[in-house]
Amino acid sequence: SRELFVLTYGALVAQLCKDYEKDEDVNACLDRMGYSIGTRLIDDFLARSAVRKCRSYSETADMIAQVAFKMYLGVTPSVSCNSASGNEFSLILDKNPLVDFVEELPAERASLCYCNLLCGVIRGALEMVHLAAEVSFLQDRLKGDAVTEIGITFLRKPEDRKHRRN
Amino acid sequence: SRELFVLTYGALVAQLCKDYEKDEDVNACLDRMGYSIGTRLIDDFLARSAVRKCRSYSETADMIAQVAFKMYLGVTPSVSCNSASGNEFSLILDKNPLVDFVEELPAERASLCYCNLLCGVIRGALEMVHLAAEVSFLQDRLKGDAVTEIGITFLRKPEDRKHRRN
Repeated sequence: SRELFVLTYGALVAQLCKDYEKDEDVNACLDRMGYSIGTRLIDDFLARSAVRKCRSYSETADMIAQVAFKMYLGVTPSVSCNSASGNEFSLILDKNPLVDFVEELPAERASLCYCNLLCGVIRGALEMVHLAAEVSFLQDRLKGDAVTEIGITFLRKPEDRKHRRN
Repeated sequence: SRELFVLTYGALVAQLCKDYEKDEDVNACLDRMGYSIGTRLIDDFLARSAVRKCRSYSETADMIAQVAFKMYLGVTPSVSCNSASGNEFSLILDKNPLVDFVEELPAERASLCYCNLLCGVIRGALEMVHLAAEVSFLQDRLKGDAVTEIGITFLRKPEDRKHRRN
């Protein structure tokens, strides 16, 4: 049952909103926490899913959507590839169980990425299988978008990474 | 899958430990958060469990252990009655999934009730079905006890409550 988790996650976000005035700081904190969770969750995922090693970014993105999201959140996002170079993907969620109890973001929290923990979890888990990635929300139903969309950009080489960060 | 929940709960406790120096303040905050969660979770519980109205404190304690704990944490504590007056019960957990990733409490956090959120959840949920109760950890494996034991004292009358608080 996910309700206790979803409500506990809400308490965590509310606490961080008390702790940090700026939405950006809350978002960064959720991402950091998620990263740390992801680096630990990956062992559980690999042990229980018994999946084979992915041979492409595309396969990895599908695995995250179809196995990991299903396992931990009970939903299966659709996956789309966003770049000819084949390293940018979107996970598109029609329904996001993490916001089940959230009506809308308060006006003073318009820049909050409420579910940013998930981005950190994905990033942390990928890093443990030696895949560097940038993960962020591209659309969010909580902000009035039609769907919730998580963007994953796999960073092939250290140069890519540096380039994107600058 | 509970692992994501358990790790997220750990992040919440860690954040509160950053926010509050005193263990007592962390415990109180977890209890308050839990209370608020319990007042919302009860609707979900009643809707999904489709249980009948309990006719005694004993039945209520069994319901919490056998239906609610099973539903939300996947474990079933054993229940014992601790008083001749029939209003004090213990839920005894051999295994507490919420601490799956916790090795031990740090020395400087010896008074932390790591899972205190659960006490608040039980208290909040009971209050929504018009049962006042005091809920607290009596034993905790994280503190070296043989089992984890949550005590529930149902407060029959306003006088009981006042008496206990003084």
